[in-house]
Amino acid sequence: MSTAKVWTAGMLVIGGEILSGRTHDRNIAQVASWLQVQGIRLTEARVVSDDMVAIADALNALREGYDYVFTTGGIGPTHDDITVDAVAAALSVPVVVHPEARAILEDYYRDKPGGLTEARLRMARVPEGAELIPNRMSGAPGIRHGNIFLMAGVPAITAQMLDGLTGELEGGAPLLSETVGCWTAESEVADILREVEKAHEDCQIGSYPFFRDGRTGANFVIRSTSREVLDSAVDTLCEALAEAGRDFTPGGI
Amino acid sequence: MSTAKVWTAGMLVIGGEILSGRTHDRNIAQVASWLQVQGIRLTEARVVSDDMVAIADALNALREGYDYVFTTGGIGPTHDDITVDAVAAALSVPVVVHPEARAILEDYYRDKPGGLTEARLRMARVPEGAELIPNRMSGAPGIRHGNIFLMAGVPAITAQMLDGLTGELEGGAPLLSETVGCWTAESEVADILREVEKAHEDCQIGSYPFFRDGRTGANFVIRSTSREVLDSAVDTLCEALAEAGRDFTPGGI
Repeated sequence: MSTAKVWTAGMLVIGGEILSGRTHDRNIAQVASWLQVQGIRLTEARVVSDDMVAIADALNALREGYDYVFTTGGIGPTHDDITVDAVAAALSVPVVVHPEARAILEDYYRDKPGGLTEARLRMARVPEGAELIPNRMSGAPGIRHGNIFLMAGVPAITAQMLDGLTGELEGGAPLLSETVGCWTAESEVADILREVEKAHEDCQIGSYPFFRDGRTGANFVIRSTSREVLDSAVDTLCEALAEAGRDFTPGGI
Repeated sequence: MSTAKVWTAGMLVIGGEILSGRTHDRNIAQVASWLQVQGIRLTEARVVSDDMVAIADALNALREGYDYVFTTGGIGPTHDDITVDAVAAALSVPVVVHPEARAILEDYYRDKPGGLTEARLRMARVPEGAELIPNRMSGAPGIRHGNIFLMAGVPAITAQMLDGLTGELEGGAPLLSETVGCWTAESEVADILREVEKAHEDCQIGSYPFFRDGRTGANFVIRSTSREVLDSAVDTLCEALAEAGRDFTPGGI
């Protein structure tokens, strides 16, 4: 059994639009998938509204608990964009204008109507001590302060920022996974799943039931940091499903 | 300014499939929208993996902070379904088989292959003192323990359970909202948004930018518990956008 350090991350989604039900969050899955490849495990995510105290409290809890913290949302130019202020408060550092961010925005808005207004200049504000995360899409950069990463709320921009961070963070062995799908009620194969998981160390099996086209099915996701363990668990699971007379689909349904 | 009690809820999404990036959560938005209609404000959501301590800790934090707590996920028949155990541990009560839940499952599985197996019987387990939340879709009920509500992870089943709870919970005045869309960079109208919000008590304006078809736009969501305040804020915003020469779309883009 591996005793290598497991690198962990917490995530903070900032935005009333998620908590009002108006918008489905897409950033948790996006950041989570990206982190898997970096060998970092997203262990907890929190969603809070655009509220100074709520953001600061959640940030402090997450940075105490995990190696990295990623936030999305609230770094734009409008009055409800208060992430920088809240994070600075949580870190007990002042908010300053980052000269490089200012230069990027000056350049980006040079030819645009209105130019670099006061509202747009808000996007150059960072907690003191921060570096920038490049954003090729809309100019306004993301912000890195130690192991805290402040990213955009718009998923396409977040994707750009993650791209800029790829390979930059220390992580462990990526968590590998394989999926086996089965047109069966998960309750019919619950024993099989438990037995296969028990028989393999460093292996977790998740069962994700669904209803589709009026039928009941489930995807079983097997995860391990070891390719060998993973392959063995998948083989054992498929054999057991076959023995029990279940149709199954390697790769998932 | 209204001094009526604001009813709040916290939500706990339980499931490694969300934190691995495999699945986009759809329950936060679903529960949030439903809560709005009940006059209850979703104030925080957390996502944790299928881990006893993580679930129990998050549940205790949320039930201390909010009037209601809703959980989704982890109440099925497989080995990774541990929500009931974790919640019972958090509440310091034993897990018991609920006789009515057992009867429901016996009835539901009577004609199904395998009948009521031990795995399926897991779905009759509840923290002692709980009541059931009906689920017309798949038999297995949701669970209510005081102001804590344990619901399914599959969104279609969660919807059934919410339906069964409609009108059952004490809440305040529903938060009303109107949306105004604008094909403009939000940074160009940031001052207008701030001024309109400042001029109206009991009114919040959120700005939600997007990129679509290669163009920049934003939806401005105005919220208030007062219809009068809401209408006045929307009128003022539209007038100000018109004066500034912006095209806008009542109802949102």
